[in-house]
Formats: sequence, C-alpha cells, structure tokens
Amino acid sequence: MQIAILGRGVVGGGIVKLVEEAETPLLRKIKIKKILVHRDEQILDDQHTTDFVEIVNDPEISVVCECIGGVEPAHSYVKRALEAGKHVVTANKKMLAVYAGELFDLARQKGLVLAYEASVGGGIPWIDNIKHIQRLEPVTSFQGIFNGTSNYILSQMAEKDLDFAACLKEAQELGYAEKDPSDDIDGGDVCYKVCLSALTAFGKIADPSQVDQWGIRHLTKEDFAWAKANGRTIKLLGRGRQTGEKLSLQVLPVMLKKTSLLARVGLNFNALETDSASLGPETFVGQGAGSLPTAHAAVQDLLDLAEGKKGIVQSAEPGQLTDEEEQTFYLRTNRADFFQDVVAERISEKAFLTKKLTLAEISSLVKESGDPAAFLAGVADE
Amino acid sequence: MQIAILGRGVVGGGIVKLVEEAETPLLRKIKIKKILVHRDEQILDDQHTTDFVEIVNDPEISVVCECIGGVEPAHSYVKRALEAGKHVVTANKKMLAVYAGELFDLARQKGLVLAYEASVGGGIPWIDNIKHIQRLEPVTSFQGIFNGTSNYILSQMAEKDLDFAACLKEAQELGYAEKDPSDDIDGGDVCYKVCLSALTAFGKIADPSQVDQWGIRHLTKEDFAWAKANGRTIKLLGRGRQTGEKLSLQVLPVMLKKTSLLARVGLNFNALETDSASLGPETFVGQGAGSLPTAHAAVQDLLDLAEGKKGIVQSAEPGQLTDEEEQTFYLRTNRADFFQDVVAERISEKAFLTKKLTLAEISSLVKESGDPAAFLAGVADE
Repeated sequence: MQIAILGRGVVGGGIVKLVEEAETPLLRKIKIKKILVHRDEQILDDQHTTDFVEIVNDPEISVVCECIGGVEPAHSYVKRALEAGKHVVTANKKMLAVYAGELFDLARQKGLVLAYEASVGGGIPWIDNIKHIQRLEPVTSFQGIFNGTSNYILSQMAEKDLDFAACLKEAQELGYAEKDPSDDIDGGDVCYKVCLSALTAFGKIADPSQVDQWGIRHLTKEDFAWAKANGRTIKLLGRGRQTGEKLSLQVLPVMLKKTSLLARVGLNFNALETDSASLGPETFVGQGAGSLPTAHAAVQDLLDLAEGKKGIVQSAEPGQLTDEEEQTFYLRTNRADFFQDVVAERISEKAFLTKKLTLAEISSLVKESGDPAAFLAGVADE
Repeated sequence: MQIAILGRGVVGGGIVKLVEEAETPLLRKIKIKKILVHRDEQILDDQHTTDFVEIVNDPEISVVCECIGGVEPAHSYVKRALEAGKHVVTANKKMLAVYAGELFDLARQKGLVLAYEASVGGGIPWIDNIKHIQRLEPVTSFQGIFNGTSNYILSQMAEKDLDFAACLKEAQELGYAEKDPSDDIDGGDVCYKVCLSALTAFGKIADPSQVDQWGIRHLTKEDFAWAKANGRTIKLLGRGRQTGEKLSLQVLPVMLKKTSLLARVGLNFNALETDSASLGPETFVGQGAGSLPTAHAAVQDLLDLAEGKKGIVQSAEPGQLTDEEEQTFYLRTNRADFFQDVVAERISEKAFLTKKLTLAEISSLVKESGDPAAFLAGVADE
C-alpha cells in the first residue's frame, strides 16, 4: 500500500519514523511514496515535494495521510484527495470537526475511508473502541479529559499551588503548550474532539460553534483553594450524551471529587470514558498528544486500511443540540450582583454556587452580565 | 453462525441475554442453537440439553462458547470441541491457563480460533488491545488490578478502616466473593490472568504453578495503617515483563503512592496497563467481572468470528521464568528474627522494610522461615 504524508512536523515526522523503523510484517506493507513539505529547503530527496498536485495525480498513491494541521489548506487537500479516489487518514480535529458534514458525505459517495483515530485522544484507541462497543450496543454517553495541555496546567496548579499564568508559562517552556494557547485553554480543542466523538458515538454531526464551551483561562488560585477545601480538584472535561434524537455536548471545567478516577489523571495525560448498557463505564487513560503516540494512532488507521478492515463511513445527520441536564455551578465573577436570583450558596464576595441550572441557562446569564473574565465550573456529584 | 453455549450461569446467562436481545445487525448473525445445562430440571425447551455429545456431533454448530468455569469438565469439553473442528470462545481463565500449551497447539493444528477475551479483565477489551498494539510494536510490559473481588476488599479497607475479615464478609454478602474465596484473595485468579496476558503479549506459555504468587489473606489493619501513614494504599497487582528471552511474572500486593492512577481505582473495578515504545503507558479501567461485562467480552469474540476477523493462534513456546528486578518489600511476620540480614528499616516488632531483593529471594526466605501467616507487599516507587 503506497501512501503520501502531508506535512513532516510533529505528527507527520512521527509517522515517517514508525513506518521507516517498521518491525512487524503488517507495518512493512506500508510504503511512503511522497511526503508533502512546505518549503523547498525541506526537500531532502525525491520522496519529498512541495507540490500537492504531484501527490493527488499519482495513481499509485492510494492513501493520503494529512498531518498539516489548521483548517486550510488541510481541508482543500483532503477534499481533493477524496475527489481523486484516495482514502484519507487525518490527525486534524479542527479541520475535520468544522467540515465533517461535507467530507464524510464525499467519502461515503466515493466509497472511501476517512479515518481519524489520531484526531482524538492521541495514542488512546478511542474511536476504535467506541466502534467496537457499537457492534453490540449503543454508547449512551461519554466524558473525559480530552486536552493534555490544559490537564498539565491543572495538575500543576493542584500539586504546587501555583497560579495559572506560571503553569501556562511552564507548559509552554516544556513544549506542551503553543505560543498562542487559546485552543487549548479556552476549550476549542476539546470542543472539536467532543464533536468528533459525538459523530462516532451517536452518528450525529454537531457544529462546534454551537457547543457551549468554557475554558480555564480565567481560573485563579482562589478557585482552586475552594475546590481543595471541599475535597475536590478541577479538570477540564468534554461530555456528550444522546437522549432520543437530542444531543447534549459540553466543554466545561468541572470540580471533581478527589476520589474520582478522572481526578487522579495527572500530567498531560488524557482519560476518555464511555458508558453503555452491558459494560457500564469504561475508561481509557494514555498520552493524548505528542509525536509518537499520535503517529501510532494514525498508523493504526493505515494498518486497518492495509488489512481491508476499515469500513466506509456510515451516514451521519446534523444533530439537534439540546441541554436539559440541570447541575450546580461554581461561578466567580466581577458582576456577582447580577446573579442574585440564581445564588444557592455564597463562597466569597465574587464567588458562589448556583441553584441547579442548565449549562445553556448559566452561559446566557454570564453573557448578559457582560463579565469577560468570569470563571465557570460544574460541581460534580462524584 | 450457529453456536452452543456450555453453561447458563452468570456468564452463560449473560451471553444468552445479550444475543436474544440483539439490537445490532451484526449481533443478529449469532444464533444460539444449543445450551448445555447441568441438571435435567434446567431444560426449559429443545434448545437446552444435558448431553454434550449432542453439541459436539451437531455439524451446524460452528462455535462452542464455554462458560462452565473450573477445570473439568470444561477442559475436556473444549478439547473435544476443537477436535470436532469447532471454534471455541471461553471465559475460563483457570482452565485455559493450566492447559494453554495443549489447547492452543490443538487449535493451531486444526486451524481453529480459541478466543479468550472474557477470561481476563471482564468487559475491558484487554486481549484485543494488546493485539492491536502488536500490529505495530511489541508490548514490553504490563501490570494491573486483575481481580475485582480483592480490589473491592482493599478499597473498603482503605476507605473505612475495617479489617480484612469484615470486608471479605461484606464482599461475600454482595455477591462479589465466593463462599470459598481462596482464588480471589490468595492471588490464584490474578496468576491465571497474568499467564494469559503474558501468552498474548509475549507469545510465551507460563505454568501458573511456577509464578511467585502472594495474596491479601493475611493483610491486617496494621499493614494498611503503615501504608496510609506513608501516603500509600495497597493494591493486589499482576505484572509481566519480557526481557530478551526471559519472562518475569509476579502476583503481589503493592504499596502504591496515593497519587498513582492505579491507587485511585476503587470498588470492584479492574485497571490494566500496557507499556510499549511509541505509546508509553496506556491504562484501561472498567468492570473486570460480573455477568454482562464478561458476557459482552465473550460476545465480542463471537462477533469477530462472525465477521471472520479473528486470526488463528500464533505458535507459543514455553516461557523461561526469571526474576532479576530488585525491589523493596514490606514484610510482617511472626518470625521477624529470621530476617535480620535483609532488614533495611524496622517498622514494628513484626514488620519491616527489606533491602532491595528479588521476589524469588524474599519468597524463598519466607518459605524457609516457616511462617504461614506472613504478609508480603512490594513498595512501589510510584
């Protein structure tokens, strides 16, 4: 099976390494014919090219593995690869979540595989395991720690009593966080992964911009102090649940009891949990990012293709987002006066626990209040 | 695909339920033609029989699903089913670990599948995930909480400061532990599962009776108090590691730091961890026992057979057991005087930490000392 890899960065480079050092017979079936690089000086030999047309027009290349990241040109390359009759493996959660409707339709029409194990949970076989369970029964809900960067920051804040800025800076120095960390700390990255998990688990396409999304940018030591004093820690969770035709998706920091399993997932690890009728909760914990774990997941997709094991994508419909679950929230805001009607318990001048509300209700109240630096977190029963 | 189920107890009954209530097209491919029961009064209709010969001679039955438990007659039924050219799915760790050499050889000669996902980790797709990783790279080691009953007892002792006997009694009342709990609390059950995990991960057959095996029967509140005072909890772990041609397998209570993920795995859950080059540690947490989770795993094996996805068993050789890893142990014994040469730190009159030793060395010392009620535990670095 001859493939092309688009991009030789963190993930693309990892795939090249794993395939070139192949030690299993199955892995040796994969031949990298072309690697698309950005600049002429990255062309090391004939295998490298800066011209995507060379790849898309090559009839010997049956699979394109997209590791460019970002929305464009990744999206148009993937589209053109599918139009040219090539299977696609991608690690690009943002591009895929944004263009899921278009790209999965195209793949289905063409009878092609569009595989995305590497786009969620790094090395954790998350997509594969959801599909595994579905052979037998529906996955009714999922939740988890989907972002390693924010988990690293939260784990450091919990352990060392440091403030957010110091932990973010350390994560950046260690290479866990980008210079512009917005997608990691504002919940965007989790949101894309939640949408792709919902697509897999529920067969529904959700528009990421319609998902209520809260991050950890405005988290302070004060918030953590309350969590600790109450036997809790804070984790940024993504959650999805299907009830009948309705889909509930959330991206939200949650104050978890310290005795819960997710509370114990430290460093930059991810932990992803399914729930289904006969299995109950199953949790997968592993490296959710990084060159080799993510490359491993992409190569697993390639191996499925090499073995003819990958089914084409089932039809997916736009999901109807809803939010009926009422929960208690922790809110710290400079506009505490605005929230008098929903306060259940005051914690400080600025912070309080709310009455039971839906995430949509509290989100719209915070928006109305006009405080751009409010910190919102769920308070979990467990 | 027509199958027979041997036994309609906890696991067999669960499989019948899952197959009869089938909601997925794939699951509806499985037809239960016969169910073997023990006594005449369990024969509810023509589907049931007390005569194994009826099953083994039925050419329409292509798969036998063994859920009897225990060594005999389970072993001879599985053997006769393979000899008659039928694939076998089993949930029986003890029988399979004891007769692995014979049965996997027979299956290989006949070109048949002998599948055993349900025999380790209940609903956790443990065997499947080891094989998944191996498509790309070797699994270098594994460890985990393999026994739900002992984990329930240990979790209760940790949380409620109760003594061992009280927690065992509660586990028995809740149906988590058998009347004779020996296999669960003395480490036998973990040992069988470690042997089957090693077979899967390393392709080596180990004789369960040759594995150093320590349980929790002699654990007291005093041992737990020391663990707690040192920021630790106690878990019964199974571990396997391959170094070159040598195989190290252990069944041992371990004093884990409270900050470790395995320390946080409560109730009767299992948590099984692989390590491999590109993925690093990956941990799977879920229900390791119980009717439906275990039945789910057996049905997943059946679905692989229905889809023609299950490979026949690769050849496995007898493993050469060794033990070169030196570690610190906690030992409490009535013969403390016997151990003067290996004491590193005294804890009480009867309890102490050892110098670094191999498990084989301390095991043989304890045997020599002649104390049948000694409690031994590893002291983990993490």
